[in-house]
Formats: sequence, C-alpha cells, structure tokens
Amino acid sequence: MTASGLLGELTGVGADRTRGGYSRHVFDAPERELRTWFVERAQRLGLGVETDLNGNIWAWWGAPGPDAVVTGSHLDSVPGGGAFDGPLGVASALAAVELLQGKGFRPGKPFAVVVFAEEEGGRFGVPCLGSRLLTGTIDAGKARALRDPDGITFAEAAAKAGLDPERIGPDPERLGRIGRFVELHVEQGRGLVDLGSPVAVGSTVIAHGRWRFSFSGQGNHAGATLISDRRDPMIPAAETVVAARRLASTAADARATVGRLVPTPGGTNVIASTVDLWVDARVPGDTGTLSLVEELTGAARAAAEAEGCRVEITRESYSDDVVFDDALRRDLGTWLGSPPELPTGAGHDAAILAGFVPSGMLYVRNPTGISHSPEEFAESADVDEGARALAEVLEKMSA
Amino acid sequence: MTASGLLGELTGVGADRTRGGYSRHVFDAPERELRTWFVERAQRLGLGVETDLNGNIWAWWGAPGPDAVVTGSHLDSVPGGGAFDGPLGVASALAAVELLQGKGFRPGKPFAVVVFAEEEGGRFGVPCLGSRLLTGTIDAGKARALRDPDGITFAEAAAKAGLDPERIGPDPERLGRIGRFVELHVEQGRGLVDLGSPVAVGSTVIAHGRWRFSFSGQGNHAGATLISDRRDPMIPAAETVVAARRLASTAADARATVGRLVPTPGGTNVIASTVDLWVDARVPGDTGTLSLVEELTGAARAAAEAEGCRVEITRESYSDDVVFDDALRRDLGTWLGSPPELPTGAGHDAAILAGFVPSGMLYVRNPTGISHSPEEFAESADVDEGARALAEVLEKMSA
Repeated sequence: MTASGLLGELTGVGADRTRGGYSRHVFDAPERELRTWFVERAQRLGLGVETDLNGNIWAWWGAPGPDAVVTGSHLDSVPGGGAFDGPLGVASALAAVELLQGKGFRPGKPFAVVVFAEEEGGRFGVPCLGSRLLTGTIDAGKARALRDPDGITFAEAAAKAGLDPERIGPDPERLGRIGRFVELHVEQGRGLVDLGSPVAVGSTVIAHGRWRFSFSGQGNHAGATLISDRRDPMIPAAETVVAARRLASTAADARATVGRLVPTPGGTNVIASTVDLWVDARVPGDTGTLSLVEELTGAARAAAEAEGCRVEITRESYSDDVVFDDALRRDLGTWLGSPPELPTGAGHDAAILAGFVPSGMLYVRNPTGISHSPEEFAESADVDEGARALAEVLEKMSA
Repeated sequence: MTASGLLGELTGVGADRTRGGYSRHVFDAPERELRTWFVERAQRLGLGVETDLNGNIWAWWGAPGPDAVVTGSHLDSVPGGGAFDGPLGVASALAAVELLQGKGFRPGKPFAVVVFAEEEGGRFGVPCLGSRLLTGTIDAGKARALRDPDGITFAEAAAKAGLDPERIGPDPERLGRIGRFVELHVEQGRGLVDLGSPVAVGSTVIAHGRWRFSFSGQGNHAGATLISDRRDPMIPAAETVVAARRLASTAADARATVGRLVPTPGGTNVIASTVDLWVDARVPGDTGTLSLVEELTGAARAAAEAEGCRVEITRESYSDDVVFDDALRRDLGTWLGSPPELPTGAGHDAAILAGFVPSGMLYVRNPTGISHSPEEFAESADVDEGARALAEVLEKMSA
C-alpha cells in the first residue's frame, strides 16, 4: 500500500472533539490502537516485530544484527495535533519496504523500521522520551517518576502497557545495532513552501528545552480581597509570558513559547493560589537557549517578588544544537538529486540518535507551513514522493 | 445540634485532592450528598421540605404562607473552596431553628430555611443562578443553555437531578411568600478581624460581574514557527491580565481578577490556537465596573490586533451595587446590640433577593481574612455565636 493509503487507515483514530485534530498520547487508547496497526502492517510485510524495554517498537526485515539500516518515527501526537507529524514517517517507512520488496530488492545489511515512544512529550512532558531512554540521555529513575496531568507516573503507565518499569533505561545492545538512521518527517514550518521541491534533506536542529515555572501566592476571594492585600500568582505568570516574547524577539532566530498555563484552583471568582506555566525555548547556538531562559528566570523572579509570590523553576529537558552527520547528509543529497537542505526548529528522535550514530532526516513539503495543529498538511502526491525518496536512500544504504 | 456540630458532619464531602479544599458543584455527587444531608436534618427538626422548580430547597417550619421569615444560604463551593462559604449559613439556620424549638418558641409567621442552587457559579458560570432564576433576574432560556466545562448544559444537569428543565424560571408565587430574608455568611475579607466582634451586619454589596474574553489566533509548532510568523493568542491574553491589574489599581476600591485561563490545545510545544480567560470585576458605584471593563476591552482589542489575533468578549453576569434594606438593617443592629456594619465585595443570594424583598445579612468573623480557599476559617465559638445571633433575630422577625 502507498504511504498516503497507509496514512488514510489512521483517519479518525484519536480524533479530539474538544480541541480538533488528534490527541494520541503514549500508551493511551488511540496510541495503543496505532501500535497494533503498525504491528499488523509490519507483520503483513513479513517483518519480525519486537517491543524494546522502553516501549519502542522494532520491525526487522530479516534477522536483527549490527550495522543495521534503521528508519522510522513516532505515532504519538501533541494534544490536538495534526495527522502527519510522526505517522507520516512510519507510514513512509512501511511503504518504502513494500516498494523495495516489490522490485525484488533484498537488503544486504540488517534493516529495521522503528516506532519511538512519547516523541512529543505530550503525556509525560519530556520529548523524545523513548529515544532518550534507549540512548541513556535521560536518567531512568527520573523517567519513571515523570507524571502525566492525571498524576499517573511513567512507571505506572509503562507497567500497564506491559513493560517492566524496573528495566526501562539505556539499551546499549539495541542502540549498538544501528549503523545509520534516517527519519522522514513532515516539514513543520514554511521552509519548503516556495522551493519547488516535495522533499528536503535535514541539516541542523536548533537547541531546545522545556522549563516549568511554578508560581505560588495566596488563593483568595476575587471580590472581598483588596488589590493591595493580594498575592496573585497570575500576575507574575502573565508578566513572564510577555517577557518570554520580548526576549525571543530581541535574539536572532530565537523562539520562546508558553502554550500551557494552568491556574489552580481555576475558578472565575477565585484568586489563584498557584499558576504553573511551561516555557518552550529554542535559540540556535550552544548558549543562546540557556541565556534566554536565564534572563527569563530573572524577570520571573522579579515579577514574583513584586507581587509577594514565590516561583520555582524546573528544567524538564534540554538538547544542544544538532548538526546531522556530514557524510550521510552528503549521501542523501547525492542520491536524491540535490534537493534543498533545511535547518529546523523542531526536535526529533533523529536528533537524539545523532549523538550516538550517524543520523539524518528527510522532510516532506507542508503547504500550510503549520504544524502541531489540525491544519498541518501534506499533499498525497508529496507523501508518496517522500516514500519513494525514502525507499531510494534505504536501498542505497542497505545494498 | 450546634452549628459547629452540623458543619462537622460535612467534613470530607467533596474534598478536592488535587486543589485542596472542597469542590462541590451544583448537582454533582458531593453537592447532592449535601442536599440529602440537609433534607434529613430538616426533617428531623419536623420541617416540611420541598424542592422548587429551579432546584432551590425550602424547609418550612409550619405551613408555607405569605409574609414568611426566610433564612438560608447555599451548599455549593468554588473549585477548591473552603468549608464555611455557604454551609455555615445553612448549618446556622438549622441550629437556630433547633435553638428556638428548644426554648418552646413557635413562630407567629410562616418560617422557612432555604438552600439556593449554584450560588458560586462554579459549574455553569453564572453566580447566584438559583436566586436569579427564582426572581427572573436571568432569562430561563439563557440559563438552560449554560454549559459546564464538560459541555453539559444546565438543562441536561437539571433534568438529571429530577427537575423539569422546561419549567425552570421565575417563580413569583414562591418569591411572593417571602416577607423578609436574612442570610448568615462567613466574612470573606479582613473586615471583622480587628473589630472585637464575632458577628457583623451587612450594609452593601459592591457591583460585580463576569466577562469571558476569548482570544483566537493560529495554533502552530513552538519550534518551527518564527516569532514574526506567529499569531499567538497567549500574548494578548497575558497583556489583558496585566491590564486588568493596572486598571483595578488605579480606580478607588476596585477589584479585577483573572483566576481562570484556558489555552487550547494546551501543549508545551504548541502555540495555542485559542485562549479563554474570565475577568471578575467589582467596583463600587453604578458605573465603575462597566467603565473598567470597557477600558479593559479596549486594551484587549488593541493587544489582540497587534498580534494578528481576534477577541470576543461576552458578559456572563452583572449586578449593580446593592444597599441592604434600611429598616431591616436597623432592626438587626438593634436586636444584636449594635455590632459592626460591614460592606462586602462578595456577591450573595441575599443581594439578588434585595431587589425584590427586604433582605439583610449577618457575617461571622474569619480570622484568616481568606476565602474561596482551604484557608477560609471560623472558630467554633464564633460559629455558634453566629447561630445564636441568627436565632435571636429570627425570633424577633417571626414573633
């Protein structure tokens, strides 16, 4: 089946009636339904499927082994996300295998399609959790203790999904099998819109991280409490949102976003007792992101103090700038007839793996330039062109 | 049983493990448990109980009739609220009846204890919904269409609670029975802390209202979207929070609060597509509240426009300044030996009824000065002193 046909099979799974788009979070019902779909589709192609200690799924074409060519992406989404971010790379990998099988190709090296768990961090807060655990980029104990918005820990959710939470963590044997890794992904900005090409090769991923700012003050009555008697954490929280925008606007090519903000208790006629907000910050270069967050921390502390509130700031994740493997990038460009090369501000499992094995990325054109939204899109013709390009490079890599 | 003893029976019902304090919202399981408790307690005192068309409960001592003396309050809470706001007035009313019965008093007029529904607006957004419906202060069709955060309409919730949603609305017959109404309530600010008296008489309620500000922009990827390409509704929302504080700080005795703010979809790595926030505004005088909100509307529109966003503003409720009935206020003061008189910034069912029948209030000292919070408090001695004061005035009123 074509990549666009495979994607079509997923329509409706995890549709979010409140937010629009899709909400598919690691180990929830829709994400498990997508996992089952992947396993069945892979088995129909004759691949041998295994789930690793960290909930990532590996489908092997032939016997597992060292120096393997690996491709794949993820099936989870952000809350209210689009249909392409993640599943496009998985569907394209399956379609590429079918294309290669159809022409009688047999890989000369071990070959696998992988589905990584919790790439978005949409449930437990840390993006690329599956690839971070595999590579030991996150401490297993810290990962076990992560909580979803309902208070369920990753250890509990993993156990419910059939994993042994005590065994999650670095998996050098599986990681050591990967010779080179390529991830195909929908482009998430306007980078490819005007370049006349359905496919691009990834060059870099901007440094990025997530910080939680927890403001606490004094919950109280919205009518009976004079302004001068208030310690309202919503005030420094709002000022932090404004400061994040100001700081991102003054640094070249910087991005800072507050998309999640939760006042507690959250009543209309109640001054909040606490406000939690999350800052997603991304600035190119080795120090830019951390500098921006340091300045923002200062602004948040000053705003909290002025209101008689406290603020605690926790780093939930951070990744440095990633430049994809030079040789692989050159190869991908050569094999595909020199398509455009694109940097991205979006994080990916390929960028985590890049610290351990030669990794690269292909992007498929997104005419809306919008992602993490129901409006994320790719034309079917571009989807299938992407899968053909992926088949092309996988054939060369595994010959 | 004493008022403090009765209150003690409610400990734990609707305890909110996430927010702390109590979440008891109209027609939910804890609020229904409190209603059942009230009916049983009232019947044990020999009162005849009926639930009216709008979900308010009336417990009659003797036959219902005109020129009745009525007292009561509410059992619902804000999300994560305290144990006293509402239940204190209901428990004190029951205790007052028992005190009067104990001394052999028989009222010379019809006499009722009332529990009003949805005083906080914690579920359907409009405060004092039960007394507004009774008095026709809100259109019944508008009330039926109100939705809770899960999308359930008031009509659906009322039907599930055994009411006929088509019959909710003005109830002139029941309203016409009330001769005079007195509500006892925990004091919600610091007004009584330093005055050396456990009880005060209410003088005025400040004008107040609620407005919903719905900002919409373009949901997108937090990493791949340049700042210059963004239409992020969180920015004008945060600026509106800051503007509300600024405007309230510059008008005398004004209060403006944003305690509820909801970004959608609410992902850390997602620029929000919409942000809804609620402004609770209260300024003494006939025009102050509306003027403040008009200025805030201008600020919100300008901030939205600067970000390429839209904003829709909806008034959810509004009540003018209320001055409680002069004669009743004088009587209450005389009977209780001239305790302090207090204005309040908090709304109450008594302030809704004040537009239709002579109404008054008694406040019980709150040593924390905090309300709508788990820290709301009243000493048991003060609680029981309040109930004795209520019994005293009810005896005089119904003699």
